[in-house]
Amino acid sequence: MTSSVSPLAVDLPTLAPLAGVRLGAIAAGIRYQGRTDLVLAELAPGTTVAGVFTRSKCPGAPVDWCRAALKGGRARALVVNAGNANVFTGRAGAEATKASAAAAAKLVGCKPREVMLASTGVIGEVLPHDRLTAALPGLHAALTKDGWEAAARGIMTTDTFPKAAVRTARIGNAEVTIQGFCKGSGMIAPDMATMLCFVFTDAKLPAPALQAVLRKGVAASFNCTTVDSDTSTSDTVLLFATGQAKHKHVPADGGPMLRGFRAALADLLLDLALQVIRDGEGAKKLVRIDVTGAVSAGSAKRVAMAVANSPLVKTAIAGEDANWGRIVAAVGKAGEPADRDTLSIAIGGVWMARDGAVVPGYDEAPVVEHMKGPEVRIAVDLALGHGRATVWTCDLTHGYIDINGSYRS
Amino acid sequence: MTSSVSPLAVDLPTLAPLAGVRLGAIAAGIRYQGRTDLVLAELAPGTTVAGVFTRSKCPGAPVDWCRAALKGGRARALVVNAGNANVFTGRAGAEATKASAAAAAKLVGCKPREVMLASTGVIGEVLPHDRLTAALPGLHAALTKDGWEAAARGIMTTDTFPKAAVRTARIGNAEVTIQGFCKGSGMIAPDMATMLCFVFTDAKLPAPALQAVLRKGVAASFNCTTVDSDTSTSDTVLLFATGQAKHKHVPADGGPMLRGFRAALADLLLDLALQVIRDGEGAKKLVRIDVTGAVSAGSAKRVAMAVANSPLVKTAIAGEDANWGRIVAAVGKAGEPADRDTLSIAIGGVWMARDGAVVPGYDEAPVVEHMKGPEVRIAVDLALGHGRATVWTCDLTHGYIDINGSYRS
Repeated sequence: MTSSVSPLAVDLPTLAPLAGVRLGAIAAGIRYQGRTDLVLAELAPGTTVAGVFTRSKCPGAPVDWCRAALKGGRARALVVNAGNANVFTGRAGAEATKASAAAAAKLVGCKPREVMLASTGVIGEVLPHDRLTAALPGLHAALTKDGWEAAARGIMTTDTFPKAAVRTARIGNAEVTIQGFCKGSGMIAPDMATMLCFVFTDAKLPAPALQAVLRKGVAASFNCTTVDSDTSTSDTVLLFATGQAKHKHVPADGGPMLRGFRAALADLLLDLALQVIRDGEGAKKLVRIDVTGAVSAGSAKRVAMAVANSPLVKTAIAGEDANWGRIVAAVGKAGEPADRDTLSIAIGGVWMARDGAVVPGYDEAPVVEHMKGPEVRIAVDLALGHGRATVWTCDLTHGYIDINGSYRS
Repeated sequence: MTSSVSPLAVDLPTLAPLAGVRLGAIAAGIRYQGRTDLVLAELAPGTTVAGVFTRSKCPGAPVDWCRAALKGGRARALVVNAGNANVFTGRAGAEATKASAAAAAKLVGCKPREVMLASTGVIGEVLPHDRLTAALPGLHAALTKDGWEAAARGIMTTDTFPKAAVRTARIGNAEVTIQGFCKGSGMIAPDMATMLCFVFTDAKLPAPALQAVLRKGVAASFNCTTVDSDTSTSDTVLLFATGQAKHKHVPADGGPMLRGFRAALADLLLDLALQVIRDGEGAKKLVRIDVTGAVSAGSAKRVAMAVANSPLVKTAIAGEDANWGRIVAAVGKAGEPADRDTLSIAIGGVWMARDGAVVPGYDEAPVVEHMKGPEVRIAVDLALGHGRATVWTCDLTHGYIDINGSYRS
């Protein structure tokens, strides 16, 4: 397995303390040796929580746990382990979530249902939760307001760099902060959310308002990305609001007061989602696909995803080959309304095909130059209607095969 | 690009003459240098024809041509070129098909609409049909009853071995022969048919009966295979019946008389379809996926295809890693009814997961041994209903990246 950092990596931003959050990581020895693999965050009393999860029919036990726990809308702790996904582990998996939540609840002084859980790693192996619960007291005793980078690193699996983002927004006259981290690299084809992402804000937001802004933000970020079309069984995005900021009361339905917050959150989620794609297994290029002129926004997105998930398009990009014929084929297979004879395709802003045929004598030189760079832009115009969508993916390289041909070994 | 023959290759069967068919291949210099790339088959007067094509919304010009020409139900010639797919070529593409058919019709002495066309290769480049029509007279003059292997080789693109199959069947008291060849390696995710496949029989069959048996045969063969989830713009399967065999009259609706023929054709098509998978770009293992216990046959097939198209499952197989957790994830993402807690998974006949959890203490040794072999069998039982399906795919290896990262160069 390659261990070099993705050439598309971005630096970790400065992660300052956020009122109401203390966190940290420890090496619990769940699977990995010599690295942290267990993360705990303790949240101030009164913290509300929202969550969006995988739509997999085979979700992990922690996803089941969170779905049930979320009904209360309150959270006091978050426990995340890396190395074992606790998926497809039957009754033992449910027992592991119960034991983990109980142990954390006891340390924090809350109900087990106020503990959110997430696990990531190998599927189908029973989580050795005794190691997890044994490590929790030491981890809890060492929690600090500065544990953000440690937490971002502690949840990594095949990730080659830690991923975090920060934004600020105004609610009324007060400034609030939104800060989060995530992990993800392979098995990325979100169908609600992707892999694990934890976002915290000091804003004071009722759980229903929190849930609404999160759902909308995820739809336009994580749900518009794919590495390999393989939706994870563990996809989880949680948003915690500690309520420590002083601002006017926000009603349950959010409303116009949250306009700035919504935009900042959306921006942060897209930043994090693109960091996951930048760390897509084996990725050497970040690819943006804009589809316009579709019969609807949904149709545009399905066409865009067909292009984004096409192994032939992705390998052509890896080979820096402006093989737009493969984009035509991917549009054609999407099953959405498309008319070959009105279809136009551009790479790097150069329209190479227009109205169903190659643009005679188009200049391939700037396209070739564009494809050599780290970011590739593809535009598809169907010229049928006003539906549009943008999605992101990465190229498909030898690195993906290296990483995934020997993941368990 | 690797040029070594697939380790899964099978030998070309003995291809004897078939009454009513003369064929051959020639180097027309359409794209490749130093190899044949143009195939012509001349068919006896009275030959009927049936066809099944891609459901791509961006079909190639030859697919448009054949769809229209098929309405007559008669064929006297087949012209196939490799190296250029004549797809997304606008008016120039339609002109190329017209000119090619006219040239062949003149040589054979038939109407242009009795000439079937197919092209395979790069998308989006105008077919230099003058080279094709210039080469046709020499090719026509050299047609023989023994040109089968030459034809099977002349249609290859990234294929590493020629693909053909022969079967016999009884219609009434007469024995008829069915013999065909095909090509395909990448861009294989049939949604009606796959890539190019041409089958010939000396049986005397009305076009409607021919179409019905072909459609049914393709559904259970080519349409149950995938290499890379990328449906081709050129998928074409044509079945020609020269009518040279002496047997009782077959009615337009086929009927029970064709039972044996149907079975033999289905068997031949599956043979050819699996040869394409055996030559899947970079393939080192042939993978069979059986799904049982689904709520319907359609649901079973969608689950099976989700497993077959999962890059993570395919790379695990390449790595000879019995990572059944990725099979769970693929079942989960299919969007079909599935209950994690009744799901069972076997590899090589060994049930590793049953009823939602790993089988305690199952013996991994025979599974590891099985995965080292050239053919891998995966079984998924959903335990919900009686729907079942079988599909085939191959593993995803470095060879796929090698081949597709530099196809045009």
